[in-house]
Amino acid sequence: MSAPVWSVDPRTGNRREQVATEATAEEVDTTVRAAHAAAPALAERAQRARLLRAAADLFDEHVDKVVECADAETALGPGRLSGELVRTTYQLRAFADIAEAGDFLDARIDHADPALTPPRPDLRRWKVPLGVVAVYSASNFPLAFSVPGGDTASALAAGCPVVVKAHPDHPGTSELSAALLHRAAEEAGLPPEVVSVVHGFDAGVELVRHPLVAAAGFTGSVRGGRALYDAAAARPRPIPFHGELGSLNPVVVSEAAAAERAEEIGAGLAGSMTLGVGQFCTKPGLVLVPAGESGDRLVTSLTAAVSDTEAGVMLDHRMRDAFVGGVRERAELEGVQSPVTPGAGSEHTVSGGFLTVDAEHVTSGGEYDLLLEECFGPVTVIVRYGDAAQVSAVLARVPGSLTATAHLGAAEAEADGGDGGAARLLAELTPLAGRILVDGWPTGVAVAPAQQHGGPYPATTSTSTSVGGTAIERWLRPVAYQNAPQPLLPAELRDGNPAGVPRTVDGVRQS
Amino acid sequence: MSAPVWSVDPRTGNRREQVATEATAEEVDTTVRAAHAAAPALAERAQRARLLRAAADLFDEHVDKVVECADAETALGPGRLSGELVRTTYQLRAFADIAEAGDFLDARIDHADPALTPPRPDLRRWKVPLGVVAVYSASNFPLAFSVPGGDTASALAAGCPVVVKAHPDHPGTSELSAALLHRAAEEAGLPPEVVSVVHGFDAGVELVRHPLVAAAGFTGSVRGGRALYDAAAARPRPIPFHGELGSLNPVVVSEAAAAERAEEIGAGLAGSMTLGVGQFCTKPGLVLVPAGESGDRLVTSLTAAVSDTEAGVMLDHRMRDAFVGGVRERAELEGVQSPVTPGAGSEHTVSGGFLTVDAEHVTSGGEYDLLLEECFGPVTVIVRYGDAAQVSAVLARVPGSLTATAHLGAAEAEADGGDGGAARLLAELTPLAGRILVDGWPTGVAVAPAQQHGGPYPATTSTSTSVGGTAIERWLRPVAYQNAPQPLLPAELRDGNPAGVPRTVDGVRQS
Repeated sequence: MSAPVWSVDPRTGNRREQVATEATAEEVDTTVRAAHAAAPALAERAQRARLLRAAADLFDEHVDKVVECADAETALGPGRLSGELVRTTYQLRAFADIAEAGDFLDARIDHADPALTPPRPDLRRWKVPLGVVAVYSASNFPLAFSVPGGDTASALAAGCPVVVKAHPDHPGTSELSAALLHRAAEEAGLPPEVVSVVHGFDAGVELVRHPLVAAAGFTGSVRGGRALYDAAAARPRPIPFHGELGSLNPVVVSEAAAAERAEEIGAGLAGSMTLGVGQFCTKPGLVLVPAGESGDRLVTSLTAAVSDTEAGVMLDHRMRDAFVGGVRERAELEGVQSPVTPGAGSEHTVSGGFLTVDAEHVTSGGEYDLLLEECFGPVTVIVRYGDAAQVSAVLARVPGSLTATAHLGAAEAEADGGDGGAARLLAELTPLAGRILVDGWPTGVAVAPAQQHGGPYPATTSTSTSVGGTAIERWLRPVAYQNAPQPLLPAELRDGNPAGVPRTVDGVRQS
Repeated sequence: MSAPVWSVDPRTGNRREQVATEATAEEVDTTVRAAHAAAPALAERAQRARLLRAAADLFDEHVDKVVECADAETALGPGRLSGELVRTTYQLRAFADIAEAGDFLDARIDHADPALTPPRPDLRRWKVPLGVVAVYSASNFPLAFSVPGGDTASALAAGCPVVVKAHPDHPGTSELSAALLHRAAEEAGLPPEVVSVVHGFDAGVELVRHPLVAAAGFTGSVRGGRALYDAAAARPRPIPFHGELGSLNPVVVSEAAAAERAEEIGAGLAGSMTLGVGQFCTKPGLVLVPAGESGDRLVTSLTAAVSDTEAGVMLDHRMRDAFVGGVRERAELEGVQSPVTPGAGSEHTVSGGFLTVDAEHVTSGGEYDLLLEECFGPVTVIVRYGDAAQVSAVLARVPGSLTATAHLGAAEAEADGGDGGAARLLAELTPLAGRILVDGWPTGVAVAPAQQHGGPYPATTSTSTSVGGTAIERWLRPVAYQNAPQPLLPAELRDGNPAGVPRTVDGVRQS
């Protein structure tokens, strides 16, 4: 008998209803084989675009039902979830456009050149879909990083069938999403097996090991993500594993920035670190603030703003316990203070807060390395520094992150060209992260062609992005045709460019 | 005391001279740290181009000395090695051009758009070098896939310092190449530590585990490559490992092609499979030939051409033993014939040959799976098939390869659009390989923008190419700057494009 999958209300801890059962190994096998068999149906890019747009339309149409279901399971609130749904449908439509435009194929044609030594044959290269993609949903984005999320959208746009491992925190939303995607497939004239959902921890492990799974996308914890990464690498035939595991998202507030905008920065930080009950992968988790009066003003402002924040419900009780325990362990370190103590609120809530510590503690290593690990939830660590050397010493210990942020004074931001302290600071932050912000907050990740949501390990297990148009590159591999006759080439590579895609011909880009 | 590294003459098996010592763990550490410290010297793309061009000029200047040294260690012959040197300097200069042009940065700018919901910040993305790259040299290309080879050229073009693990079959050539590269660095005003060479098996393992090594490129055997891949994946911080491990390179000769060109195909195959004593990673190792009269003619032609081939010296005696043993094991399988028996020649040589077997044996699995493994050296396996279903059944068992080839009849190549047998055959070959050839031979890999030298595992451990311009993508990761003031941006991302690189601005490509 398969184990039941329950939808649970995090506001009470009570089971709402059984929405599915955990997939057995046989069921995972059947699902993956069906997805693999459906792959040829995704051969046409126009068809993929129809699927993605039909899905976006259906989610728009059923916004109330989807948001209600997601809120009941995640407690993220209808406002945030409506916004997330807008983001999700925007993503689906953006990848429909990308599938149609065909830039991602990186089509390249080198005509034969018998005059070269050795003579060059005719070579025509594009990218083909890898095959079935396994997607592991995130807890904290039940839509945008779950069943109908970015990984699903980019993989389908690439022409890959998708099997999603649903997150146990929102199985009902996952089932509802799967039903809408199946309807979208039907409307687009595609078999429903182009996207499927499975539940259960063991099913997730089976999935990454399945011989017909060709790549995986993951958003979650370091522990879970690393276990799946290791399983992907240990396969007889290893597969790409694009995992987003954990991120500290360091912020450096310069002396000048603190002097000019202490109150504004303190309030902004409070908003960013408590947003969504601190459950963003881009939450600023370590903030370097100057010692002295300007920094004190910043901490005072932060104290006031965080104290005003209401207690919130986390995604599940296990996370709540981990947050409360993680904060306590950090707060007990010698030299760590908690001007606003984060921790348990009422029976089901947590309250936000922050810790402060001097830079020399953080650079002393040992048990203080705990302060350099992500603590999921509404807490951040303020590190007070004396000079630029201390900033460098702390940053040298910070692990790879999705983002790194500098708050700069007006003059240093604008005036010092390549040589000043601000330039040095950005040069120190760049190796740490995939997105470098100036005078902003890392929460909020724009879906845009130039976005990079992915950084050095453990932020990401690959060099790819999971947000923005280039996310599609993860699900493709290049294939070159040598001296293939025109009728046997895909339209995208034929003379005269009948498919109308951008191409690079003999080294020159044609639009 | 460090173990001595000897240069050995494969024509006699005798030691020529001691050319180096194996690097200890401490020496590997020192070398990698020095490489890491030299990384900032490669910040300017123009400087990288100067280094690569200076290296190409120096190899051209010292062609006689380099070829003599390489021939003495590899027995590949001055003709082949002079050609390989031309290929190597072409590659170095091609990557100099690529470094200067900057397409590989994939620069993208999305201007801020406050009208969007949510408002979009200013985002500017390019790619930055990953850090120190470990390169594992190939035995069979002492120049083009070794110290001055494609991995070194592409990594330096990307801005990554390189530490090469020399192949034990040509340590003298590796030392000579390192000396020339160090002179090139000096001429380009760069520290010599931007490229270094280490010797020794243990040093290679130390290298892939070193915390400051950020990526690895490998060309070699499945066994060695998989061990290093596993070590790269098992690191506390895993790194990309781009390994080219082994490739069967299947060829399908259609009934029509055999009927039209049996003799030409037989002779062409003989040339391709014995080229360089069968020591190419793209050697056709499995050739599907129709049963019946046309196929018989092909085999007759192959027999004559292979019988005419002179015995050759393999790269080392271990490989010679593996070839002789591998051929014997295959030839002993029930139903396998050897019209021209490959195996030992004189004391130090091997003679080329081929095996034949019926398709039903190959598809029966078990011990016959040995025929689907690469056997390095001048041997190929001819599989006689009865119909298209047998071709499909054999191809379904073929592992990932660098190349897959179809020989087609004139009418089927040109006339049958998307629906005929030739189209179906190409659709069956495409999932198997990174380069699909029609009416050609896979040995000979053009260095060209549209080249793809990399296929599904075990051909390659990643989806990348190791030959051609896009090989540079392996050593980069994207970084996006959000709301960074102009003076703090790299020139490549500033308004007005002062660096003159191709960019995509608000989704539109600017040349």
